[in-house]
Amino acid sequence: MEKPSLPKGTRDFGPQVMARRNYIIDTIRAVFQKFGFLPLETPAMENLTTLTGKYGDEGDQLLFRILNSGDYLKKVAPESLTSRELKSITPAIADKGLRYDLTVPFARFVVMNKHEIAFPFKRYQIQPVWRGDNPQKGRYREFYQCDADVVGTRSLLCEAEIILMIREVFAKLQITNYTIKINHRGILSGIAQLCGAAEKESALFVAIDKLDKQSREQVTAELLSKGFTQQNIDTLFVLLDAKGSTTNKLAFLATKFETTPEGRNGLIDLREVLNLLNHGGTDEAHLEFDTSLARGLSYYTGCIFEVKIHDSGVGSVSGGGRYDNLTAAFGDKENLSGVGFSFGIDRLYDALETLNLFPDSSLASTEALVCAFDEASFHGGLKVLASLRAAGIRTEAYPEVAKMKKQLDYANKRNIRWVVLIGSDELATGNPKLKDLISGDQWTLTPPEIISKIRS
Amino acid sequence: MEKPSLPKGTRDFGPQVMARRNYIIDTIRAVFQKFGFLPLETPAMENLTTLTGKYGDEGDQLLFRILNSGDYLKKVAPESLTSRELKSITPAIADKGLRYDLTVPFARFVVMNKHEIAFPFKRYQIQPVWRGDNPQKGRYREFYQCDADVVGTRSLLCEAEIILMIREVFAKLQITNYTIKINHRGILSGIAQLCGAAEKESALFVAIDKLDKQSREQVTAELLSKGFTQQNIDTLFVLLDAKGSTTNKLAFLATKFETTPEGRNGLIDLREVLNLLNHGGTDEAHLEFDTSLARGLSYYTGCIFEVKIHDSGVGSVSGGGRYDNLTAAFGDKENLSGVGFSFGIDRLYDALETLNLFPDSSLASTEALVCAFDEASFHGGLKVLASLRAAGIRTEAYPEVAKMKKQLDYANKRNIRWVVLIGSDELATGNPKLKDLISGDQWTLTPPEIISKIRS
Repeated sequence: MEKPSLPKGTRDFGPQVMARRNYIIDTIRAVFQKFGFLPLETPAMENLTTLTGKYGDEGDQLLFRILNSGDYLKKVAPESLTSRELKSITPAIADKGLRYDLTVPFARFVVMNKHEIAFPFKRYQIQPVWRGDNPQKGRYREFYQCDADVVGTRSLLCEAEIILMIREVFAKLQITNYTIKINHRGILSGIAQLCGAAEKESALFVAIDKLDKQSREQVTAELLSKGFTQQNIDTLFVLLDAKGSTTNKLAFLATKFETTPEGRNGLIDLREVLNLLNHGGTDEAHLEFDTSLARGLSYYTGCIFEVKIHDSGVGSVSGGGRYDNLTAAFGDKENLSGVGFSFGIDRLYDALETLNLFPDSSLASTEALVCAFDEASFHGGLKVLASLRAAGIRTEAYPEVAKMKKQLDYANKRNIRWVVLIGSDELATGNPKLKDLISGDQWTLTPPEIISKIRS
Repeated sequence: MEKPSLPKGTRDFGPQVMARRNYIIDTIRAVFQKFGFLPLETPAMENLTTLTGKYGDEGDQLLFRILNSGDYLKKVAPESLTSRELKSITPAIADKGLRYDLTVPFARFVVMNKHEIAFPFKRYQIQPVWRGDNPQKGRYREFYQCDADVVGTRSLLCEAEIILMIREVFAKLQITNYTIKINHRGILSGIAQLCGAAEKESALFVAIDKLDKQSREQVTAELLSKGFTQQNIDTLFVLLDAKGSTTNKLAFLATKFETTPEGRNGLIDLREVLNLLNHGGTDEAHLEFDTSLARGLSYYTGCIFEVKIHDSGVGSVSGGGRYDNLTAAFGDKENLSGVGFSFGIDRLYDALETLNLFPDSSLASTEALVCAFDEASFHGGLKVLASLRAAGIRTEAYPEVAKMKKQLDYANKRNIRWVVLIGSDELATGNPKLKDLISGDQWTLTPPEIISKIRS
């Protein structure tokens, strides 16, 4: 028989990994809830009419399609089969696909439930998504996204609160050395206009995005090849070189953006975000206004965010921004404005591991194990087991009468700290031994004393 | 543009439903953890070699298959395509399928990780599964299972603890009127032997299972048609008619099972389960030994369970049993014994709704909403917002300066109890108004007073 295996790019999460993932997810969820976000879950499968055309051609290629039930070939024309014409066969044999992100299902949900929803609608969603990417380190075919979005308001308080939420999540996870980069679609448009790129914004933004990894010479060469003049490029670098605090950068760009209304609106928005942070009693800590932050621009229309944890060995762990056409793709005329962001759980996990920030308690599972030396003590131990559980202590009994070494090995492997030992003596007195496997200390105690010892 | 829709048999879980589902799931999870079970999650997709052949022919038909990426027809022979021979096409175009239950992925995990696992291994798993069934009331194509299993021990303490866990979950959910039915595969075999059905057990068990819904006359007719004699059937009903307490039934069957070792072993096991409950200080509450409980018998080898909530309008909400060949299907030679059970979240949800048992607090989300009368108060309110959140109160600010009625409507729709009102007066004194939307009472308070009022 063949050995069982997992599909490429997928993972099991065993108990240790689950405990740590839950530590991250529970932390994020608590912050989302504190800020008034409500939970939503959508099905793993969506109709392909919902999914296709939303992620570009490349995204469509990466969708996992589900074979229709029954005689799935019945809608396929004979000539398509003989010519093996996938373009006409695929839509005929697969109506459904696996969710590719959480944003499109959220938009679908909003459109389908518009009349029951209280707007502004603040929802969070923590679920897996699936992409047929080639797996590599840190990139999986099944991975969790962790999104929070507000739709139905243009209030920049939402943007300010995204910054607050990221800071609060990181404070709870004890991550201190990180940067929240912020930029604005209007500012990028303003820069494009001043660089003579009004008609070729995307070429410019693709090039700007590369400044993270490539030299200015390489980016210059690319821009020259795309038809930009040396003067355009010089202007670009002057604008990108704005230095100092966010306030300074904003003031500098204000002097340049006199002729570009989009650029000016971007500056006004960013100033208001800072203003709202100040009114809430906080400052620009961890915040960096970065004019070269571009992100998938076709999508966003206002502020954009990206978060990096320094010295963590992982790329961006969170990102998002404002979009104005979330529901338009589903025929909604109201053009609901929204703003959202997402944490990447896998990358956060890797960062916490690299920085050694997982608390020991994130692994805590069973607190106490009841171990018996013989059959009579095994039965006698069950009352102790019941009383520990009644006190809320996570307790198990080793389920068999086995050699004590085997039982203690089990406790050690399972990271169970407290062992309650019962033999004929302990059974006779009613007072078991309690052993602390961390210190090695051992006491003979009454069951209530055992409970208070473990509780302390 | 076509209106967006959901695939047949799938559901969105909006905030209200999610809050209630989480109430159920969190309750179950806490009990599982208290009893020492550890979390596991497996991928939604499994290789079809893992899934097929595990659920019978009917199950194989219901698997959702995922179309291979890229040129999925490349492994299909031309003659298969022209003859539309699904049997040879399907395995060539789909390597992966969606998880059909949580037991088979668990068995695969155990076999793949045998050398790292500390046995006995107690795992719980709460994840969705997918089946291409025809959807109907209470039956979905995507639904959650909520399993706990122990593998690697034959100890009947595991069976006793399943009973304890079901009772504890139900106590926490305030479900009082329910029955945990218990039976044993050996007892069913004993009955079959005494009824001359040793060679046609499954026909007998299928008929017994129907006694729930059909009359004895109907079941008798079916058994006669399957070749059972009237004497066999009379013997059957005598055995099924054992009355009284579990102890009485066990004693009655003991007098009948002198010649059937399997039946006697079943009685010994059940007695030991009761014995273990007694030693733990508890009794047979809610427990009913039901010799006509059969469940999918090809699978189970020892005790079997099924739980019904009376007057709830739903069928069984939980079930399980012992199996001895969990990992054999994956070539494992050790034949690990296991016992497990599962809660059906959807049915539990329906039962709690019917019985009106969801606590109001299960819907609690945001506790307080900060509402401003004008722009200046809006900014001023942000400090109050920050101080409420710093005190751990789940708070939002209405994100725009809007008419007060609109803001209060939002609070009402969202079930937010406390509203903090700020206008120019409140801004001047620094003391906002606090309004309780349940009682209608209103006070002018300092921010610390607001916090203690909400906290009380």
